Amino acid sequence: MNYENIIGLVAGLITSASMLPQLIKVIKEKDASYLSLAMICILIIGLCFWVYYGFLIHELPIILSNGFAVLVNSTLLGCYFLYRSKK
Amino acid sequence: MNYENIIGLVAGLITSASMLPQLIKVIKEKDASYLSLAMICILIIGLCFWVYYGFLIHELPIILSNGFAVLVNSTLLGCYFLYRSKK
Repeated sequence: MNYENIIGLVAGLITSASMLPQLIKVIKEKDASYLSLAMICILIIGLCFWVYYGFLIHELPIILSNGFAVLVNSTLLGCYFLYRSKK
Repeated sequence: MNYENIIGLVAGLITSASMLPQLIKVIKEKDASYLSLAMICILIIGLCFWVYYGFLIHELPIILSNGFAVLVNSTLLGCYFLYRSKK
């Protein structure tokens, strides 16, 4: 693994970590009402483009971190519908 | 500009666009109290790593979109302190 990949993985790790508290907060409080459905969907679409881009230029850090971000935001999307129906 | 760069720029444009509503909301309502200072700082650090990574692998889409994200989140950070002191 070369120097660039290490930097990319560190970047991905940090930005991915910064998403988790929001997800934990939504799950703990069982409340996602303050989230914008449109923004989560737009973000997931953008992140899918990043994953596709990562495959095109064969860069693992881009694929892994944006793939993880798709996972986190898809879970947020699920929580949005799950907790909305319970109200 | 090759196909990969176009995909990267589209990805960057979409994920950048998804950040703006939150910034607009904070400025309109002059309230950033619900933001997590720690998360914004961690995110900015991660985004700086992404910009550095973009320079290392000479990929314009990564440099531009993450550079823009650093700008947006630094403005959010500024708003956090600006509106907190006014209360």
